[in-house]
Amino acid sequence: MAITYQSPIKFNNFSPISPSYPISNNFTNLKFRFCPSPVSSKTHTHITIPEPEPVFTSVKSFAPATIANLGPGFDFLGCAVDGIGDFITLKIDPNVRPGQLLISNINGDNGRLTKDPLHNCAGIAAFCVMKMLNVQSVGLSISLEKGLPLGSGLGSSAASAAAAAVAVNEIFGRKLSVDQLVLAGLESETKVSGYHADNIAPSIMGGFVLVRSYDPLELIPLKFPYDKDLFFVLVNPEFEAPTKKMRAALPPEVTMSHHIWNCSQAGALVAAILQGDSRGLGKALSSDKIVEPRRGPLIPGMEGVKKAALEAGAFGCTISGAGPTLVAVTDEEEKGREIGERMVEAFMKEGNLKALAMVKKLDPVGARLVSSNLR
Amino acid sequence: MAITYQSPIKFNNFSPISPSYPISNNFTNLKFRFCPSPVSSKTHTHITIPEPEPVFTSVKSFAPATIANLGPGFDFLGCAVDGIGDFITLKIDPNVRPGQLLISNINGDNGRLTKDPLHNCAGIAAFCVMKMLNVQSVGLSISLEKGLPLGSGLGSSAASAAAAAVAVNEIFGRKLSVDQLVLAGLESETKVSGYHADNIAPSIMGGFVLVRSYDPLELIPLKFPYDKDLFFVLVNPEFEAPTKKMRAALPPEVTMSHHIWNCSQAGALVAAILQGDSRGLGKALSSDKIVEPRRGPLIPGMEGVKKAALEAGAFGCTISGAGPTLVAVTDEEEKGREIGERMVEAFMKEGNLKALAMVKKLDPVGARLVSSNLR
Repeated sequence: MAITYQSPIKFNNFSPISPSYPISNNFTNLKFRFCPSPVSSKTHTHITIPEPEPVFTSVKSFAPATIANLGPGFDFLGCAVDGIGDFITLKIDPNVRPGQLLISNINGDNGRLTKDPLHNCAGIAAFCVMKMLNVQSVGLSISLEKGLPLGSGLGSSAASAAAAAVAVNEIFGRKLSVDQLVLAGLESETKVSGYHADNIAPSIMGGFVLVRSYDPLELIPLKFPYDKDLFFVLVNPEFEAPTKKMRAALPPEVTMSHHIWNCSQAGALVAAILQGDSRGLGKALSSDKIVEPRRGPLIPGMEGVKKAALEAGAFGCTISGAGPTLVAVTDEEEKGREIGERMVEAFMKEGNLKALAMVKKLDPVGARLVSSNLR
Repeated sequence: MAITYQSPIKFNNFSPISPSYPISNNFTNLKFRFCPSPVSSKTHTHITIPEPEPVFTSVKSFAPATIANLGPGFDFLGCAVDGIGDFITLKIDPNVRPGQLLISNINGDNGRLTKDPLHNCAGIAAFCVMKMLNVQSVGLSISLEKGLPLGSGLGSSAASAAAAAVAVNEIFGRKLSVDQLVLAGLESETKVSGYHADNIAPSIMGGFVLVRSYDPLELIPLKFPYDKDLFFVLVNPEFEAPTKKMRAALPPEVTMSHHIWNCSQAGALVAAILQGDSRGLGKALSSDKIVEPRRGPLIPGMEGVKKAALEAGAFGCTISGAGPTLVAVTDEEEKGREIGERMVEAFMKEGNLKALAMVKKLDPVGARLVSSNLR
């Protein structure tokens, strides 16, 4: 599933009609990495899409939470989680200038997110898809409903971007491929969260996704067998993970023996996914010797919570994304609830933190249309 | 497939009857790591096997060549190659003192291997299995027929050990598990070649095997789908790889970015194997940024030969084991022969080395009985 798409569509001047719309004025200087103007490299394929007619007047989309990093899968492996995520309502809006985008409303973010579409993860992804589709004749407005807490390690920004990218693609009759939508989402992640596709790819594609390379972006979907049971216990403490410290905690170099160990665990993790071996999956996910030992101590009580999870029967436990949410793995929902309770108790006991536990399945579908209104 | 076996059988004094048999006298001081005497750790399971009766008077076994390291699978991933390997003929020998072992003959080694069973890879593995089986009442003699060149990167020592371990197990009615045989082979590898299971495990088990951990030894068989085509082009130049330099070339540390890259490629490699994607397999195998760039330059012409392989249509190419054999991957036998020819030419042109090419399939079976004579 190699992706070598670059849109040849030139960036168009862009300003909102709505005077209340907070947006900077230097749109022409904005650079989009994955959905930009001229194609220079021989390896990039030129795809010119005639401007599509909208199929719907409005659509509502959903994109799931994601667990990235996954222990030894650090920075290249993530999966989508069923039943929690963000919603986008997207409308063809005659009050928005053609070819342009308005974020009309954001719910569930406690006022923390900007409505500037060029600095909002949903806005950037939506606008990138508009560019890919060469949308010039209609204006769009989006409303974002956050179902995910910000900065929790559950791929909150990716879920917003994924829902937005899918919404725009759907309202114009699904002209773009999944891979192109991931590129639009990666544009957003790069600007807002960091240059990594291990949240956005599974949020759009569902299931487990391995990011094989970025240049060109190449994604490998890893299908966990439907007939096997897998439950994630997600425990989110009331704690803001210190992002800078989390990044700084990563070592610039790793020893050869740790490298070989983590590499073999990454291989074992991929094998466990494809073989539907939830026990092996938990074990591999729990075996990181490079990142978790350094980031773990930055989450109060982490070690004790992991211990509690394993003692309660979890197959494995690690940090979800950059934390502070921890993820444990089991193959029974009821056991998952017990593990969650033990982890919540341990967070209080060991880290003096309140925490909330959820037991979730894999989301094999990814970002999708929830409802639509035909024109 | 966790292995926690340790034989509780005590090491027995051991000396050959044959006066021509070159063997040291301090057998009692010999230490066997995986098939030794008392069990100390709680994690090890005590298995006491009553001494079995031999089922055959003689057996002949075969064990295949193996490709270890496999690019980003360095040190934990290997596979067995069909149609080349070593043979062992094993006999119940009334001229050998009960409980003891004689290497009566070695062919195809140009006189380079010792017949001392405690320093010969086949001997060590065979003797380890005898200990595991608690063989005390009969003596055994083995004859080794080398089909593999020594020090070529094709798992020569592992093939001898695998064939020997299997032969002893078969002659006594197959009492040990595959995992135990791997442990016996690992005993041999540790003493002769180095503490790594990525040759011995696939030589015994067949197919691809991922070594997940050593303590306890845990092996994950990775099944390449039978209905998919995969051919290895093995090109062996007339060149002795400088083992010490090859080892010294490994960096003590790797950068975080190279670690993440190789880890993701290892994951992609495992995925390609399980998904039967020979193209992806070749690509992943060819993508190592850590070991190959350092070991490659020690094999004259390596870079040019790899280039020639890729230009001839190989999906990927890397060093087999610690070299000097190079392995390329394709999905057609005829194309494999062409790739091999180009690689041989390039070895001469770029490295001034004569080389021999073979096109081989995966061996999904591993070490096995070839013939036997009932008692």
